[in-house]
Amino acid sequence: MQVWNDYLAQNKDRFLEELLDLLRIPSISAKSEHQSDMLACAEKVKTRLLEAGADTATIYTTEGHPIVYGEKIIDAALPTVLVYGHYDVQPADPLNLWHSPPFEPVINDGKIFARGACDDKGQFYMHVKALEIMVKTNTLACNVKFCIEGEEEIGSPNLATFVKENKALLKADVILISDTAMISMDHPSIDIGVRGLSYIEVEVTGPNRDLHSGVYGGAVANPITMLAKMIASCHDENNHITIPGFYDDVVDATTEERKLMSAAPFDEKAYAEDLGVKQLWGEKGYSSNERTGIRPTLELNGIWGGYIGEGAKTVLPSKAYAKISARLVPNQSSQKITEKLLNYFQSIAPAGVEVKATEHHGGEAYMTPIDSKGYKAAAAAIKETFGKDPIPVRGGGSIPICALFEQELGIKIVFLGFGLDSDNLHSPNEKYDLFNFYKGIETIPYFHQHFAK
Amino acid sequence: MQVWNDYLAQNKDRFLEELLDLLRIPSISAKSEHQSDMLACAEKVKTRLLEAGADTATIYTTEGHPIVYGEKIIDAALPTVLVYGHYDVQPADPLNLWHSPPFEPVINDGKIFARGACDDKGQFYMHVKALEIMVKTNTLACNVKFCIEGEEEIGSPNLATFVKENKALLKADVILISDTAMISMDHPSIDIGVRGLSYIEVEVTGPNRDLHSGVYGGAVANPITMLAKMIASCHDENNHITIPGFYDDVVDATTEERKLMSAAPFDEKAYAEDLGVKQLWGEKGYSSNERTGIRPTLELNGIWGGYIGEGAKTVLPSKAYAKISARLVPNQSSQKITEKLLNYFQSIAPAGVEVKATEHHGGEAYMTPIDSKGYKAAAAAIKETFGKDPIPVRGGGSIPICALFEQELGIKIVFLGFGLDSDNLHSPNEKYDLFNFYKGIETIPYFHQHFAK
Repeated sequence: MQVWNDYLAQNKDRFLEELLDLLRIPSISAKSEHQSDMLACAEKVKTRLLEAGADTATIYTTEGHPIVYGEKIIDAALPTVLVYGHYDVQPADPLNLWHSPPFEPVINDGKIFARGACDDKGQFYMHVKALEIMVKTNTLACNVKFCIEGEEEIGSPNLATFVKENKALLKADVILISDTAMISMDHPSIDIGVRGLSYIEVEVTGPNRDLHSGVYGGAVANPITMLAKMIASCHDENNHITIPGFYDDVVDATTEERKLMSAAPFDEKAYAEDLGVKQLWGEKGYSSNERTGIRPTLELNGIWGGYIGEGAKTVLPSKAYAKISARLVPNQSSQKITEKLLNYFQSIAPAGVEVKATEHHGGEAYMTPIDSKGYKAAAAAIKETFGKDPIPVRGGGSIPICALFEQELGIKIVFLGFGLDSDNLHSPNEKYDLFNFYKGIETIPYFHQHFAK
Repeated sequence: MQVWNDYLAQNKDRFLEELLDLLRIPSISAKSEHQSDMLACAEKVKTRLLEAGADTATIYTTEGHPIVYGEKIIDAALPTVLVYGHYDVQPADPLNLWHSPPFEPVINDGKIFARGACDDKGQFYMHVKALEIMVKTNTLACNVKFCIEGEEEIGSPNLATFVKENKALLKADVILISDTAMISMDHPSIDIGVRGLSYIEVEVTGPNRDLHSGVYGGAVANPITMLAKMIASCHDENNHITIPGFYDDVVDATTEERKLMSAAPFDEKAYAEDLGVKQLWGEKGYSSNERTGIRPTLELNGIWGGYIGEGAKTVLPSKAYAKISARLVPNQSSQKITEKLLNYFQSIAPAGVEVKATEHHGGEAYMTPIDSKGYKAAAAAIKETFGKDPIPVRGGGSIPICALFEQELGIKIVFLGFGLDSDNLHSPNEKYDLFNFYKGIETIPYFHQHFAK
């Protein structure tokens, strides 16, 4: 609609400035030292929602970081869209690999570089600005509710309680989430699923203190060596995960779905080149897209032990640690897999070391049907602004709360993401293209329009 | 001799204060930020040598950290004892495990707690104070030379050149080193060998940047997982090292030597209890003492990669690293083993990752004969002050320069160490018992007396 485009054109610089302002707040939910930043960020989101035209906006405290809720109700007879997003971000480590400071956003080559630029501040903020456009141009077609939380990156430990206790408040007809990616701007796509997550930490203890590796080396189990042996045992020669029962509940994708997936545009050579690897890797019998889409995986997210400074130190360390997570597919239970992981590491502890395995957080996989009203509205909106039908794809990431949303609120989720896999989410130099940011703001009002039909 | 004992009794508090003063300097050779501390420490050693009665003391610069040389020549006709020691210390990490700051020495329960308390400031300083006693009581029986370097903990990279260029300066009849341990004060012992060392660092690179573990996990080789697989492959099920050719040059200990070793007092249960492990570990077919004494070993000294902070981060890291060292036995070549280690890690690099292996430092194993004049003088000195014959044992640690000393100077080394295995060398809470410190100062003059006979 011309009126939307005009409003966007007149206000685009301010929209961007507001986003950069939000990106300057280091709202890292995983690190307790950022607690005041979390509060400041929640306050800012609340203010922006009110400025954009929300009737009310409230900060709900939780046992962890607060949730920002806001709404614009125009007519009880109209459908209601609940926008879910998160204002927290991943830690920015390793800092030395950033080309510019993670919380001092810069625009370079048409891209916003900052932690959270795409995941998820840049994406949820498109909805705030789309609300402003619709309110100011008097074109709102649906009621809108916002639930912007501060704990998505740590597994949403307190959102479930909030949802359960506030079902009436959150009552809606669809949940709209922009926290996923498209294949490319030339190949717009809609995620129809996200993977579940299990995340554990393993602590291996050998001797009760760090030892001189010459005096004791060879006579005492080295916790790093033992941890390495345990990790090495998790994948077999076909890169199949060996943890007992890991694949038990996996429902294989149908031949038809695999055929559809293989038809989606994907250039394996360009993918490997972009990542700088000579050869891709993964479970035998599956394509790269299948490995990240329809198959569960097990990744080492971190490892440490002993001397990790400059030069050499001849120490036999007392402890070694690893952070390990699994991505799950529909029908796998996060809780069951977490238990299997914990049991596995405890059960294979080699003689001479003690193994303590603890849970970080998890979340269930989620699939959304492509024949729902919400999916159809999203596809129609994309068609309006991209001129093409979107391709349905399965995303590799996780949004822990999806399954619970559907269960508690009885409505479907639609993933209307405008990121790219190459946006360096969770990595140094996270970015979000200005093109994608504005394209999202342009597309969202069409979703409301089509959903109201 | 009564005159020695009297002098020691009158000056023991000052001797200790001087050592504490030396321990307050964080002379960590591995970390470039401590360069000025290294210089300050060398200056202090020089001053103390002159105060103790040395005729001259000089700081020799090298391409790395300086060497302090000092001497007291009383009669060219008398034998000359060359004392070798080192004023550099290991890094103090992990700092959080120290009960008191590593460079703020405290006396607790009759022990000096500080980095370097035993290794090697506390031990080489016994010789400085023994010199003072002999000079002040006019009882010097030999000429004395001191070579106190600042790079022992990083493999003595510049000492070889110094020794080769200063053979006349260093000319002596025996090299005396106090940088080893005794079984206990009730079971005095003399090390007759030290192990050699090879030390490498392995860098594994997967993708060219850190990735979102959900978006890419399962499709790209994870460098931590690959590094773990490589490390796991280094030992077989009998904890035998699998690196091709690793044992090629090992000369097996004789049945007689093994019999002698097994007769030395060693309580396996107490050893495990002290270390807090339920079970000891090591190469099948060998006792704990043999594993650390006559067998080569391979230890992981450090490992790191990915997210190692608080909480959880779902990252598939670009890089993972490990620090790995081998202890070698006589007849193994440090250079050959280092090459084998480097080749091994490069050759087993899994598809999808790049492996870069680099050398840190090394040193050859060394054995000293028990029928030499020096060994006999050390044994006689210990008999004087402990009232017992010392037990000859093989030490597990390394003193990289030993083999070169013998080769260049044509003389034997005697290890007159007063530490204990439980002194937490290279570990948090390094300590040195006051009893051992003073016992060493008491014993050393007897060595000179017996060696002059």
